[in-house]
Amino acid sequence: MTGIIHHINFLVRDLDAAIPTYEKLLGRAVERRDHLPGRGVDIAGFRLGDTWLLLVQPVAPDTAPARHLERHGEGFFLLSLAVDDLGEALSASGLPPAGEARAGLDGWQVQDLDPTSTFGAQLQLCQAPQAVGR
Amino acid sequence: MTGIIHHINFLVRDLDAAIPTYEKLLGRAVERRDHLPGRGVDIAGFRLGDTWLLLVQPVAPDTAPARHLERHGEGFFLLSLAVDDLGEALSASGLPPAGEARAGLDGWQVQDLDPTSTFGAQLQLCQAPQAVGR
Repeated sequence: MTGIIHHINFLVRDLDAAIPTYEKLLGRAVERRDHLPGRGVDIAGFRLGDTWLLLVQPVAPDTAPARHLERHGEGFFLLSLAVDDLGEALSASGLPPAGEARAGLDGWQVQDLDPTSTFGAQLQLCQAPQAVGR
Repeated sequence: MTGIIHHINFLVRDLDAAIPTYEKLLGRAVERRDHLPGRGVDIAGFRLGDTWLLLVQPVAPDTAPARHLERHGEGFFLLSLAVDDLGEALSASGLPPAGEARAGLDGWQVQDLDPTSTFGAQLQLCQAPQAVGR
């Protein structure tokens, strides 16, 4: 499914501290806990309609999430847009990529966009392996 | 509709500059342009599934959006969660409000939450006048 927000990531320093607050706010138990070694993060996810709200805790130094957390503190990290084809969507966007495409959770393929080209917003394209918005 | 992200706001300095970039990225024309005098902002909106992605340009000084833009620059401003009843949802969340409830677009009633209580994320509750997620 395209034309939706696939996921939104918030950085936190301590998932176990943050999860109970989000569970109470969202009125539900956390739906997934994951470790993404290639990114050096632990993740907790809540499904909000079309979109995954992911809390992301850096657990390895010198990664992009860890550096963002040190520089900007906790809070919004990135918004990822669902696309059918990463390469086609990047080309159609006319926007410069930031780094190479990489693997996310569940076989998602993600491509960061250069935030200087998107008026400061940290945006990403996300191609999911099946057209179910995940 | 509850349990969804009602809207996400990105701050920009110049809507007219930002809109063409977002139209190309999202593959569609902007769907709404609004002025919200009580907040001192001009707004451009794109509908992404359940969620409005709103670009927000402060047009009056000494407002919360203008101060946030000056302090943090362009980019993510807030994420607003759809709720049925603002007062009940605030109470159930157990989180402290930031300021009073106020009017958004289209009769939305919104209540900011204290970001020091949400692990740095600027979150808001939003009660729409009809149960259609708008």
